[in-house]
Amino acid sequence: MIKPVSGFSKFTKQEKIEWLLTNYLDGDATLEKILKSYWNTNVKLQDLHDEFIENTISNFYLPFAIAPNFLINGQLCTIPMVIEESSVVAAASNAAKFWLHRGGFRAEVISTTKNGQVHFNFFGRKENLNSYFKSIKEKLKQSIAPISKNMEKRGGGLLDIVLIDKTKDLENYYQLHCTFETLDAMGANFINSCLEQFAATLEEEALHYPPFIAEDEKLEVVMSILSNYVPECLVRVEVSCAVSDLTTKEFDGKEFAEKFVRAIAIAKAEPRRAVTHNKGIMNGMDAVVLATGNDFRAVEAGLHAYASKSGIYSSLTHVEIVNDRFKFWMEIPLAIGTIGGLTTLHPLVKVALKILQNPNARELMQVIAVAGLAQNFAALKSLITTGIQQGHMKMHLMNILNQLEATETEKSKAIEYFKENPVTHNSAVIFIENLRK
Amino acid sequence: MIKPVSGFSKFTKQEKIEWLLTNYLDGDATLEKILKSYWNTNVKLQDLHDEFIENTISNFYLPFAIAPNFLINGQLCTIPMVIEESSVVAAASNAAKFWLHRGGFRAEVISTTKNGQVHFNFFGRKENLNSYFKSIKEKLKQSIAPISKNMEKRGGGLLDIVLIDKTKDLENYYQLHCTFETLDAMGANFINSCLEQFAATLEEEALHYPPFIAEDEKLEVVMSILSNYVPECLVRVEVSCAVSDLTTKEFDGKEFAEKFVRAIAIAKAEPRRAVTHNKGIMNGMDAVVLATGNDFRAVEAGLHAYASKSGIYSSLTHVEIVNDRFKFWMEIPLAIGTIGGLTTLHPLVKVALKILQNPNARELMQVIAVAGLAQNFAALKSLITTGIQQGHMKMHLMNILNQLEATETEKSKAIEYFKENPVTHNSAVIFIENLRK
Repeated sequence: MIKPVSGFSKFTKQEKIEWLLTNYLDGDATLEKILKSYWNTNVKLQDLHDEFIENTISNFYLPFAIAPNFLINGQLCTIPMVIEESSVVAAASNAAKFWLHRGGFRAEVISTTKNGQVHFNFFGRKENLNSYFKSIKEKLKQSIAPISKNMEKRGGGLLDIVLIDKTKDLENYYQLHCTFETLDAMGANFINSCLEQFAATLEEEALHYPPFIAEDEKLEVVMSILSNYVPECLVRVEVSCAVSDLTTKEFDGKEFAEKFVRAIAIAKAEPRRAVTHNKGIMNGMDAVVLATGNDFRAVEAGLHAYASKSGIYSSLTHVEIVNDRFKFWMEIPLAIGTIGGLTTLHPLVKVALKILQNPNARELMQVIAVAGLAQNFAALKSLITTGIQQGHMKMHLMNILNQLEATETEKSKAIEYFKENPVTHNSAVIFIENLRK
Repeated sequence: MIKPVSGFSKFTKQEKIEWLLTNYLDGDATLEKILKSYWNTNVKLQDLHDEFIENTISNFYLPFAIAPNFLINGQLCTIPMVIEESSVVAAASNAAKFWLHRGGFRAEVISTTKNGQVHFNFFGRKENLNSYFKSIKEKLKQSIAPISKNMEKRGGGLLDIVLIDKTKDLENYYQLHCTFETLDAMGANFINSCLEQFAATLEEEALHYPPFIAEDEKLEVVMSILSNYVPECLVRVEVSCAVSDLTTKEFDGKEFAEKFVRAIAIAKAEPRRAVTHNKGIMNGMDAVVLATGNDFRAVEAGLHAYASKSGIYSSLTHVEIVNDRFKFWMEIPLAIGTIGGLTTLHPLVKVALKILQNPNARELMQVIAVAGLAQNFAALKSLITTGIQQGHMKMHLMNILNQLEATETEKSKAIEYFKENPVTHNSAVIFIENLRK
């Protein structure tokens, strides 16, 4: 019978593993060995990784890979990608190569404003709240001076605070809607610290505001937090070429372009398709977000919400053929950083940023968006020509073979055989079993 | 001047690194050393990880941690979590402990149907298409026999194929909407293989269908792919207790419950808040999705699209107080697997699944959803009481101190000092600098 554990976070790593072994792993020493086989032999490096989060017992490996040949705004880039899914890096590289000879990717940052809110209740007359806000707005701004000193020195900081009446959506609900420029930092900690200071000042000053006292009006903060919805922090990325230049050995340019347009039209008409379509974009983006130490949950949330902003969840990429030119683009919200947080702590993130020639946040926004557009292009290209399984299953075959602990000879034979035959997990197992008979 | 590279994927790992060094890293040997310092000393294990994806040059470490004390449907669980963000595992553990003494989490799988579509154009009379579909439906089902044999043996497979007229949304656009039961597999490869077979049969048979020939009607497949939007694959998770039982040293139960209800109401009224609210849910869910070798992009896309299904992006969690009982729950789409893909390949995924007592897919759906609800509870609890920064910045402090390469003595002094003073990156730097003067 397993019992609850107390003070677990204070156990040493070894004690945590022993507790786990005793309570959940039947004391199986091979499992302890597996956990430890992932520890780095450099104790100092391992300590660094252990302290990133709480209750760490090992390192989870995700493959760190690179996709070369990305021509972005005239610069030839190699993009670091961290992802567990096969085919993604290969698809990115293929798309990079395809556009390398067709003008490459053009990317631009449209805006970089981040936002957060102090959500509060106010029970009283709206005019009084308006006057109150006007009277303390300067004080609010000054209250964050110690927090924002460093950010301001670098040219960023608070942009504005606006009082928003949300009572039409929810009774007595108001916001301080605050906007920020956080430069090369993603800025979550900075913004949250500012907002909590605003909240404290907002509540405290209200206690001494004569009209509130006179009319017995009450203001109470519910919570203060940044928003991961960042439609004022946008990056745009595009590829384009003459329709005839799309022609390859495999397909005619015009036919390809028209089918491509149709595929995007479907992703705009059918949310079930749009979700998977945008998921493919994120395959590319998240891989770079992870490699550069950024928070993929924040990017995912902001991006998918943006995809639903019209009221119907839809494709984030767009395409048009005008005057025989094929143009494929997307414009997406993206809040990331190149300083602070994991970006300066994780040694492999440092390497990833060096591979990208130490970009600032605006440059990294462009690279991440390019990886997303490239991924979407590659996915659509497969889907509307050979189908996605042909390439994917061939890649997947290697994984199945590894799982079966196939020898090099068995692998070569399997690769040869499955050039002509459809790959399924079952067919691969049977093929190897027959070889071994 | 950097030049494009050809045949890069065929380079050995060492050749890839050398190419990278020469072209992007100024030949800096220390960077090569960092990349290699993350290689596993066990060559066979490293080979396995190298082959998960393409162009792998190193392993990216994400902390592998555990959160104990989760009472789920009466069982005491420890949840493996892989995440780079500090505070998440601590918050999960806190929420687990909070609910441990208040009845724990109740979770249930509502449905497990997955779906995919063959998207196609049809230029002709709809009645003809309907008759055609009726005439080939059985043939379509039979066409996937070799692919679905294994899945059927286990009790799963194709559920149904329905012809859907989408011409109201897009001219000449139709679908074969296909539903599947994939049991313990996430099923992406299985579904995609089936769909591509349907597409081939659909197109081929159309060429020989007399009414199409007679009336010169044309059918062409655009693409075939599973959907990551899975509103028929749902899991529900809930916590509840008497409002009075919510009382702790820090807060009164009734006050807490009411503020909590208000916080959820705000997340329903304000999409900017809802996005961050749901992002927090994903902090918990993705950590388990990653630890168990599942695809977090698929889960993210399906979940956020579901959050926007009413037309306005909204909170995925719900709360009510009825007869002095506090009830907090969510019902979310979630397509994951416990067999196939990385789940059977990554040694640490095997350990993660053993920690969870080798769950089937339905059980794992429950655990992942619990981690999400716990995370949201913990986030809201912080937000409406102490604020999120107090806990978070204390955790973050350790990271800043590591970055400054603080000694153990410096760390103890800093921890002591920042118990009373607000943590900012700047204040931490100044504090350590002063210590070192």
